[in-house]
Amino acid sequence: MAGNSFGKLFRITTFGESHGKGIGVVIDGCPANVALDLFYIQKQLNRRKPGQSAIVTQRKEADDFEILSGIFEGKTTGTPLCIFIANTNQKPRDYEHIKDKFRPSHADYTYQQKYENRDYRGGGRSSARETAARVAAGAVAQQILEQKGISITAYVSQVGTLKCEENYQNLDFSLIENTAVRCPDLSVAEEMVSLIKAIKKEGDTIGGVVNCVISGCPAGLGEPVFDRLHAQLGKAMLSINACKGFQYGSGFEGVSLKGSQHNDEFVTEDGLVKTTSNNSGGVQGGISNGMDIYFKTAFKPVATIMKNQRSVNTKGDIVSVSGKGRHDPCVVPRAVPIVESMAALVMLDYYLMAKADKL
Amino acid sequence: MAGNSFGKLFRITTFGESHGKGIGVVIDGCPANVALDLFYIQKQLNRRKPGQSAIVTQRKEADDFEILSGIFEGKTTGTPLCIFIANTNQKPRDYEHIKDKFRPSHADYTYQQKYENRDYRGGGRSSARETAARVAAGAVAQQILEQKGISITAYVSQVGTLKCEENYQNLDFSLIENTAVRCPDLSVAEEMVSLIKAIKKEGDTIGGVVNCVISGCPAGLGEPVFDRLHAQLGKAMLSINACKGFQYGSGFEGVSLKGSQHNDEFVTEDGLVKTTSNNSGGVQGGISNGMDIYFKTAFKPVATIMKNQRSVNTKGDIVSVSGKGRHDPCVVPRAVPIVESMAALVMLDYYLMAKADKL
Amino acid sequence: MAGNSFGKLFRITTFGESHGKGIGVVIDGCPANVALDLFYIQKQLNRRKPGQSAIVTQRKEADDFEILSGIFEGKTTGTPLCIFIANTNQKPRDYEHIKDKFRPSHADYTYQQKYENRDYRGGGRSSARETAARVAAGAVAQQILEQKGISITAYVSQVGTLKCEENYQNLDFSLIENTAVRCPDLSVAEEMVSLIKAIKKEGDTIGGVVNCVISGCPAGLGEPVFDRLHAQLGKAMLSINACKGFQYGSGFEGVSLKGSQHNDEFVTEDGLVKTTSNNSGGVQGGISNGMDIYFKTAFKPVATIMKNQRSVNTKGDIVSVSGKGRHDPCVVPRAVPIVESMAALVMLDYYLMAKADKL
Amino acid sequence: MAGNSFGKLFRITTFGESHGKGIGVVIDGCPANVALDLFYIQKQLNRRKPGQSAIVTQRKEADDFEILSGIFEGKTTGTPLCIFIANTNQKPRDYEHIKDKFRPSHADYTYQQKYENRDYRGGGRSSARETAARVAAGAVAQQILEQKGISITAYVSQVGTLKCEENYQNLDFSLIENTAVRCPDLSVAEEMVSLIKAIKKEGDTIGGVVNCVISGCPAGLGEPVFDRLHAQLGKAMLSINACKGFQYGSGFEGVSLKGSQHNDEFVTEDGLVKTTSNNSGGVQGGISNGMDIYFKTAFKPVATIMKNQRSVNTKGDIVSVSGKGRHDPCVVPRAVPIVESMAALVMLDYYLMAKADKL
Repeated sequence: MAGNSFGKLFRITTFGESHGKGIGVVIDGCPANVALDLFYIQKQLNRRKPGQSAIVTQRKEADDFEILSGIFEGKTTGTPLCIFIANTNQKPRDYEHIKDKFRPSHADYTYQQKYENRDYRGGGRSSARETAARVAAGAVAQQILEQKGISITAYVSQVGTLKCEENYQNLDFSLIENTAVRCPDLSVAEEMVSLIKAIKKEGDTIGGVVNCVISGCPAGLGEPVFDRLHAQLGKAMLSINACKGFQYGSGFEGVSLKGSQHNDEFVTEDGLVKTTSNNSGGVQGGISNGMDIYFKTAFKPVATIMKNQRSVNTKGDIVSVSGKGRHDPCVVPRAVPIVESMAALVMLDYYLMAKADKL
Repeated sequence: MAGNSFGKLFRITTFGESHGKGIGVVIDGCPANVALDLFYIQKQLNRRKPGQSAIVTQRKEADDFEILSGIFEGKTTGTPLCIFIANTNQKPRDYEHIKDKFRPSHADYTYQQKYENRDYRGGGRSSARETAARVAAGAVAQQILEQKGISITAYVSQVGTLKCEENYQNLDFSLIENTAVRCPDLSVAEEMVSLIKAIKKEGDTIGGVVNCVISGCPAGLGEPVFDRLHAQLGKAMLSINACKGFQYGSGFEGVSLKGSQHNDEFVTEDGLVKTTSNNSGGVQGGISNGMDIYFKTAFKPVATIMKNQRSVNTKGDIVSVSGKGRHDPCVVPRAVPIVESMAALVMLDYYLMAKADKL
Repeated sequence: MAGNSFGKLFRITTFGESHGKGIGVVIDGCPANVALDLFYIQKQLNRRKPGQSAIVTQRKEADDFEILSGIFEGKTTGTPLCIFIANTNQKPRDYEHIKDKFRPSHADYTYQQKYENRDYRGGGRSSARETAARVAAGAVAQQILEQKGISITAYVSQVGTLKCEENYQNLDFSLIENTAVRCPDLSVAEEMVSLIKAIKKEGDTIGGVVNCVISGCPAGLGEPVFDRLHAQLGKAMLSINACKGFQYGSGFEGVSLKGSQHNDEFVTEDGLVKTTSNNSGGVQGGISNGMDIYFKTAFKPVATIMKNQRSVNTKGDIVSVSGKGRHDPCVVPRAVPIVESMAALVMLDYYLMAKADKL
Repeated sequence: MAGNSFGKLFRITTFGESHGKGIGVVIDGCPANVALDLFYIQKQLNRRKPGQSAIVTQRKEADDFEILSGIFEGKTTGTPLCIFIANTNQKPRDYEHIKDKFRPSHADYTYQQKYENRDYRGGGRSSARETAARVAAGAVAQQILEQKGISITAYVSQVGTLKCEENYQNLDFSLIENTAVRCPDLSVAEEMVSLIKAIKKEGDTIGGVVNCVISGCPAGLGEPVFDRLHAQLGKAMLSINACKGFQYGSGFEGVSLKGSQHNDEFVTEDGLVKTTSNNSGGVQGGISNGMDIYFKTAFKPVATIMKNQRSVNTKGDIVSVSGKGRHDPCVVPRAVPIVESMAALVMLDYYLMAKADKL
């Protein structure tokens, strides 16, 4: 139990449900004296919010946030920040029909088994709406990291079988927001948008991949042996709704290589130690080496589809169930700020932890 | 800091270095009154230990363990179990030549940057020798889980580009130990062994993939939202030396599917709720659904190769470095019990946590 | 950092400031399916709230609470409960005069030193207003414990030098609420009330002691060795504003006794093991033994007095400072529900932890 | 469960039993590059060890320690330090007679109820022998703190009704080791020694009080709101065997004072903010204010006495039980280094935590 917190020194706890009063987060351990940029928080929330483009759910939520504590005269005080985002566009009736049914590949059945009291409206706590709270907290972390020269950028690299194969170093990240799908390779992006629209028309859904790059991270962040930097990044990503896989650096592709091909040789450049290649993904032995940290996250197709599926109800009878209301045909465009946020939460936590390495 | 512990209720803390006095683990939270099977612990340690076959490092370590505390008249007492494995076959001289050099794709450079005092002998704390402690602890967890009907089996599914493509349900797990490479598909296994031998002859190394299946897990284990069962499994695997990726259920392959293809429909079978397919990998919303849990972990090629590589020394000069002594050409055969052990640690921890779900 | 959480399995995180938007708490790990009695929560909040009697601060706060999450159809869902209490009666102007001054024996100076950004209005986060959140959470814990037969009762046993010397077993707890001071020994209570009124007239303040008794606790709750039940109770009490001491069982008085006087002999009574005396205070080796658990907590006089005191300002100049507005002359009457709440948080946490002792 | 760890960033986990192979501790989070003074560790262990004087148990234990990990070329590496102290003088036969009996005011009964498998030899895990591990770890912390100008001194201030009433500032701490009882007021010390000898002759035991002073602590250490510095110090002390009470600053005595008497006025002295009195005990709002931190801890009389006492056995029959072998007549002389050690563990942990307060 008590699994709703994340982080050690910069520690967040989220609360709230899809169709309750709202979603919120308490950040405990935010350093004092940070002048918060509230517009940046809203900007990140807007990138996650429903209704932002034609290829995401048309559910309308303002996702305006309110800071309930922890700030004084525009600056953090070192005490807990609580950020709350009220739910404004609830249509619980859209969920009446699944009150006693378990939607396939949702968390309905498992929550029922675990808790025996389940808020069925929009998935309740298991809804991806919970990630709004993560984005609000992540936006706080991300702006602090930016001040320290650490920047985090995520983008969509795959939708269905459509892939952006280009290495991230050859992509222009300033183009990410140019398309609704958040893929900076604009020709692939266009295809992705078309695919998602077609899938939506079918009443179906499709999966995708989000890549993320962290640059400017100094060497020395990370903790042996269980809290390796990439292990915590992996946990962070896998804790996002619908995420099914994580790899960093050469990942699953690297297994086919020989050591002589895979190893990253060290050189010095302007007095700094660098590696000539970066199959390590910026992390060696769980500790950052100063090179870019990059990783990939796999997202399954959204479970809610507008087609009839076989399922069971709470009594165990076979029933038919299909989605109603407004849902995402593909989760990855909205997952981009969530991936960035979770990465920021990990990086700031490890940044603070590293302060205790030496006296 | 303080990253050497893992788990909440069944919590382990490991200590020790490759060329120090030994490697150990303290298990805090082991339930009382478990009659420990010491042979099982040794059996798992033997599956991990060096020198066990022609395709692993020829370093000889007995890896005999001693229980220093926590057991009385053959049974656990609920107090901390400390298990210690002495180092017996240290050849620190094999590492004199890298005292001031950073081996490519090892943790030498990052430990140096982080701590400024580095035990260079065999990688010190960053050595995979640390995993012996995990296996000892995991063997305790695994035997407790077996009593509860939960069994965990890992096997090698890929070495280099050689893959065992068969679904795990069609494999005979009793064959895993029949080959040195621990792949139950014996024809592929033979090829894998040949490949590893050839790679070794070259003085090179190769990567691989370990699959794992957890069966018999009841529905309801797992914790929303950050401590999702699969997220913790992912962290556990990614914390193993050389692990570069983790996916569960349909994983990265699932992203190309449509929701209508990917969703697992519910049915009842003998009064139990089951799913007709299992793309969810036994976990929905971070909580087990009673189906098999299965996942894949990617391991990079071992960084130590017997070839000259460019690197830098602690002064920043360009140097040449190559491996000496006895090293693994491929890590996956020995990674099999480590993967099982880390999975067992997660599962038992979540098993205990679930006891607090309801009053 | 991140010190705003308490508990392991039943874990609370509080947020908010005295003169911000409000005070709140997130409870993570509340068991599912508890039918919450909201009136009980309000009742406990009312026992803590300002303005309730002539001997407490006349500040008026409704202290109405709102549950923002974690409840569905009147029952807990196992997901985080967030309870929020809006601030309604803020007079920040009462604090303008201390904006740059450090009030003696308050946390002004230490917060300034630690964070360099301090919400001076009413002490900000360091205000005892934060305990409203604890009482809300504690009232949830307390009602769950009551269902399990564990009841927690606190009362005032000392104000200044006026003491209720009677053993708790000879007191009638039903009289506690009969007087504003919450001492069940009514003759002493009357004197205490007079003393507090006199002290208030002087513009001064006075300290006191709160006793607490936990009955119905089964044997076996508690965790060796650092998390002994009484050690966590001690921490819980010492974390309450103005608390300066904690003792359980025979406490400081017991040090003068000989072992032969102090030891609690075991007997059996109706098949149950009991002790003939209870100097152990219901806890042996950090684990409950089934007898009543009882302890005492010391509260210093309130730091805000209506008299001129010497102090320094943020520039280091000597200044004069005196209290303005509405303050408590003695904290113990309002501390009673806070002590109960913190005790309940500890007891429920340990109750849940004990579920994992055995398989 | 999992209560055998203490601390967040400087985190210790102890293991071992009184009559098992030994007692040990893993320190996770010790900063790197500390040149450890091993003599200091042994010196502190010697102050705690049995057999050191005529007024403590005559059990003979060398209490020599071995460092199993975490040190390289005399310096810490930032990885876990494991320190092990073998048991050498076990006489389990001294405990055969209590195998099935519960000793009054010991942890026998509660461990039996909790775990149903109890190592009865010398109390097993519940023995104060466990504190040897704390002293070893504390001696590491204490020497690091000394380097930072923070020094910790404990001494005996009461045995039975014999009190050293002198304020600590008037005592000469260099005299503490001059008497076996570790009270620097030598005339009282002599009486205390006589009392303990007399009590021992009777086959009885007596309680006492240990005071502790922490000087040189900078302002700003401590964490609101639950992890207040004094609350963690209180927990640390209360977790020591036989400790029944804790108070800091004015403590229980302060409750009789008025605010106008109790408040500590601020002044500046050589540009530093100080207080003219120190009823706050160096901590305000849970954060250090730069003044001396001082506190008191109450220890009950040792439970093992050489007299017949009534008790029950595991079957519930009334039996007679009396101590055999070698036991302490009074615990406080040996508690002095334990109190210092626990204080050091808290202070170093908070010292490291404070590094994350600001960016």
